[in-house]
Amino acid sequence: MDHLSPLTKIAIVGGTHGNELTGVNLIKKWDRNPTLIERDSFCTTTTLANHDAIKACRRYIEKDLNRCFKQSDLNDPSLITTEEHRAKEINTELGPKGSPHASDIILDLHNTTANMGISLIIGQKDPALLQILSKLSSNPLVYIYYMAEGSENSPYLPSIAQRDICVESGPQAHGSLIADLYFETEQVVYAALDAIESLNNNESHTPQSVDIYTQQYNVDFPRDEQNEPNAMIHPNLQGKDYQPLHPGDPIFLTFDGEELLYEGTETVYPVFINELAYYEKGIAFSVTQKSQEIF
Amino acid sequence: MDHLSPLTKIAIVGGTHGNELTGVNLIKKWDRNPTLIERDSFCTTTTLANHDAIKACRRYIEKDLNRCFKQSDLNDPSLITTEEHRAKEINTELGPKGSPHASDIILDLHNTTANMGISLIIGQKDPALLQILSKLSSNPLVYIYYMAEGSENSPYLPSIAQRDICVESGPQAHGSLIADLYFETEQVVYAALDAIESLNNNESHTPQSVDIYTQQYNVDFPRDEQNEPNAMIHPNLQGKDYQPLHPGDPIFLTFDGEELLYEGTETVYPVFINELAYYEKGIAFSVTQKSQEIF
Repeated sequence: MDHLSPLTKIAIVGGTHGNELTGVNLIKKWDRNPTLIERDSFCTTTTLANHDAIKACRRYIEKDLNRCFKQSDLNDPSLITTEEHRAKEINTELGPKGSPHASDIILDLHNTTANMGISLIIGQKDPALLQILSKLSSNPLVYIYYMAEGSENSPYLPSIAQRDICVESGPQAHGSLIADLYFETEQVVYAALDAIESLNNNESHTPQSVDIYTQQYNVDFPRDEQNEPNAMIHPNLQGKDYQPLHPGDPIFLTFDGEELLYEGTETVYPVFINELAYYEKGIAFSVTQKSQEIF
Repeated sequence: MDHLSPLTKIAIVGGTHGNELTGVNLIKKWDRNPTLIERDSFCTTTTLANHDAIKACRRYIEKDLNRCFKQSDLNDPSLITTEEHRAKEINTELGPKGSPHASDIILDLHNTTANMGISLIIGQKDPALLQILSKLSSNPLVYIYYMAEGSENSPYLPSIAQRDICVESGPQAHGSLIADLYFETEQVVYAALDAIESLNNNESHTPQSVDIYTQQYNVDFPRDEQNEPNAMIHPNLQGKDYQPLHPGDPIFLTFDGEELLYEGTETVYPVFINELAYYEKGIAFSVTQKSQEIF
């Protein structure tokens, strides 16, 4: 079967957001010690994505680099901000998007202020990818988060590869480093590389039941007449990523202490709760549905 | 006694750092509801300190505003960055520094990524101030942190008042809001205003034993040949602000997993552990000594 063809080009990317320091420092570590990410059956490359933003320790300079990878934007020569330019370079190095010569997998390392452990976000349910993820899912820190998005229209960096994994480690304040999270993320990357090696070697795989959290929609903060948020994430919801939110549960608390409730009719599983980099995007949290799938 | 003279001018300041949102939003709340901070015996004013940085949701635009209040800098007309200019304006409004007409107390509201609860930092052991703080110290979230610094040379905003309290609430990622911390900080401010009212009314005060953490020195991250940090706060120390650090305890973990130990000879009490805004200042944590004092 095609999906069991060897995956020979694996790219690990850090610093797509310049103030997400776990990936930045892991890439630097692997550049000092490349054997840590070498495996027999494939070639692993490392890339620091947004050099200018890393130097400034900011998410981005002019535009969020991780929103610059739509096919139409990559093809548009009029897009020339720091990040739009860099996106085209990265697409040349690790893509090009949509090509059979693109990287087989990109692992793009991010951080979040949300309590999301080590979330593996995928944009497609590729059979090889699912088999790899199933081998990581026994780690209680690992969550599998499916954000269905056609590759062509996806603005995310790893969408230029044939298979994409965005690794979100948190909670960690952007610009800071938490040692536990650094080493836990490192171990998940090694487990992913080992799983790719196992797949390439056609080692036997016993299908297993895995929890998948599938993106449904985003929820913005309530806002006042000036369009400024007038509420915060409710203390009962803060830090409760991947835990069930039931109809009638409180989700926001206004600055004056008024509780606002979840008005949906079904139990859902919020993620990216209070991710501060999403304030500017109008996202207080995202809502997922949980399912069990066997692969 | 002079220190029991009524304190009639109380100023509350938020947004000295534009991305420390607890203070910014509390000030906005009090501007909508001024009766919340009114008391009979004194006048309370509110100030948003760094408008440009608040708008940009950054710590500062050109220079850390909370390092612009040395007497010599306030007097120096050649200092004209955004923040140096604003410091002079604030000194005119709430000072002037060193004058008997300056605010009796400034409460300056900050946030920290460190696990410091609600820390009240004072630069002087003024008898009235100590009496006020003693009334707040029964709150288990409150810590009293003494950073001895002559007012004239102090670069901190509240040093322009006759008595200074810097309120540091954490942990909270800069740019984000944690609801619990917002409401806890609000309650501590009300308790401080009530304590000032009680002092002004000459209500009886029973001296009590209070823990004071006194600043000793700062500790930087270990660094490589390029002067880049090559270690992180050790997991055993992360989040352990105000807890005893004993000789031989681990304090750092290098990116390669090597533990570095505290080589001091006495037990100390670290604070501002992994405060990310201090990375640029070369501070991984600060060291205090703990004592009990009666006031």
